[in-house]
Amino acid sequence: MVGSDDVREAARFLEGKVVKTPVLRVPDLDRIAAAELWLKAENLQHIGAFKARGALLAVSRLDPKERERGVITYSSGNHAQAVALAARSYGVSAHITMPEDAPAIKVAAVRALGAEVTFAGTTSEDRRLEALRIQERTGGAIIPPFDHPDIIAGQGTATLELLDQVAAGGGALDVVLVPVGGGGLCAGACLAAAERGVEVYSVEPTSCDAMAQSMEKGERVTVMPGPTIADGLRPVQVGELNFAIARKYLAGWLRVDDEGIGRALASLLVYGKILVEPSGAAALAAALDRRFAGKRVGIILSGGNIGLADLGSLLQRYPAH
Amino acid sequence: MVGSDDVREAARFLEGKVVKTPVLRVPDLDRIAAAELWLKAENLQHIGAFKARGALLAVSRLDPKERERGVITYSSGNHAQAVALAARSYGVSAHITMPEDAPAIKVAAVRALGAEVTFAGTTSEDRRLEALRIQERTGGAIIPPFDHPDIIAGQGTATLELLDQVAAGGGALDVVLVPVGGGGLCAGACLAAAERGVEVYSVEPTSCDAMAQSMEKGERVTVMPGPTIADGLRPVQVGELNFAIARKYLAGWLRVDDEGIGRALASLLVYGKILVEPSGAAALAAALDRRFAGKRVGIILSGGNIGLADLGSLLQRYPAH
Repeated sequence: MVGSDDVREAARFLEGKVVKTPVLRVPDLDRIAAAELWLKAENLQHIGAFKARGALLAVSRLDPKERERGVITYSSGNHAQAVALAARSYGVSAHITMPEDAPAIKVAAVRALGAEVTFAGTTSEDRRLEALRIQERTGGAIIPPFDHPDIIAGQGTATLELLDQVAAGGGALDVVLVPVGGGGLCAGACLAAAERGVEVYSVEPTSCDAMAQSMEKGERVTVMPGPTIADGLRPVQVGELNFAIARKYLAGWLRVDDEGIGRALASLLVYGKILVEPSGAAALAAALDRRFAGKRVGIILSGGNIGLADLGSLLQRYPAH
Repeated sequence: MVGSDDVREAARFLEGKVVKTPVLRVPDLDRIAAAELWLKAENLQHIGAFKARGALLAVSRLDPKERERGVITYSSGNHAQAVALAARSYGVSAHITMPEDAPAIKVAAVRALGAEVTFAGTTSEDRRLEALRIQERTGGAIIPPFDHPDIIAGQGTATLELLDQVAAGGGALDVVLVPVGGGGLCAGACLAAAERGVEVYSVEPTSCDAMAQSMEKGERVTVMPGPTIADGLRPVQVGELNFAIARKYLAGWLRVDDEGIGRALASLLVYGKILVEPSGAAALAAALDRRFAGKRVGIILSGGNIGLADLGSLLQRYPAH
């Protein structure tokens, strides 16, 4: 299993190896949300997303002999870049299985980091099965995107760092909002916040709400992901370990629609001057509709990998608040 | 006069009152520039630009009785917001004269901060004369945008902070690149860098190169600003005090064209995940064309105030590198 201690240990290992990303305060967004927002800018992390944390931790903990045979993963994008970067930093090869509809910018970024890409279907299950076939051939180690103790502990350091940065500035948070795909960031956030009296809420696209449905049913539910601009939040189900942790700690589970996500992205750009991908704007979207009025709200801006053509098209559809 | 001591004193006063903006490292931009770039993100400063520093210092140093009659300034935008914010923090009124072609987002931002706006022509001289007329009527204090010891000392804190942040990370810079309009940021950078053995280079649009022409002629030159997307860098001449300091310390003066500025803006957005206005991308543009290959280069990203419509139009014209 994995607990709060593991997140703290992960933070000690990762210090100086990943970016201590800034926490931003944006008065105009506070006004829109009627709340005090503390934005953890993981879009400014290595490879443009928090995923750099868990992947580096997981690759570091492989047996060196196993690691030499290379690492393998299945991912919609940011975890792929994270594993590719971690592999490169250890001088080993990386094989990545990606969805056929992966954004071109994410494919190019993985290849630029020296990884080999194989395309496989559009669901996380398609990609996982292809990764197993590669493992049979190479004997490499699979680094799963979310359902793994090291991944959870590593991703949890984003929230732990946020809590410490807010405390260092003399503040405190009531809640932390995290976007959920498979639940790595979310489970890590739960562990990081557990001892601090800070509530964690998951945020998912309405059309891909595997965590919310699972929490409501009391067991893991498999969903058929519907269309959403948040391409990083489309796993068919959350991880087993992730769900076990969420069930124990999660204070609530929220859904946001594409319009909310798109407008949060545009608002963050014009008022906060930073760029996130749609998945990275989901947690902010949940705050901008005033669900947390009067609260002190930590928000993980999980990633910023979006091409300028896609950005242009989103900005035409969704205005800032 | 004003010296390095004044910048250090300004930094002590401003600590905790302005944002200690992050310094970003972006591997893709390093690769394009063939240099080590340290990006000082003053677009994440209060009011979205470094101008918050000098204006707050200058307003704080007014005689309290004079300050109560209100403050006045002439500005193409960001200094106006900075003075409006400083006035609000002291509970006094602000009168701003702005160019008739000021971006709507900048006008709205000034009004949102409670300032009264009067439009006057399109040059800095038009605006300065209108400010004098307002002063005759109200008896308020004029806070000039760049030609003033407190403004220079305040703006210099951006560069001092950058140098300290790089040093805290165990690094060191060879040069600092600053965009130049009237020369407040530039003169302050010269004073901040003077004792550290770091060279300062000015960067201007090719069509509005008052500093470069003045440096080449050995005296202040008045220019007729040509068209440029960098709307914040269009004064007809640099300040007198600013030029005196630049002449003593400036290591070089560079010109960049709109294509370089536009492509720097787009590249910073896609690789660095942050948004700057065109003026804020000028210094980066000077590095991305490899003028500083092999060097350790500090770059002031001076501001981020641009509307999404203008951004969309720029991104269509200028691709990322």
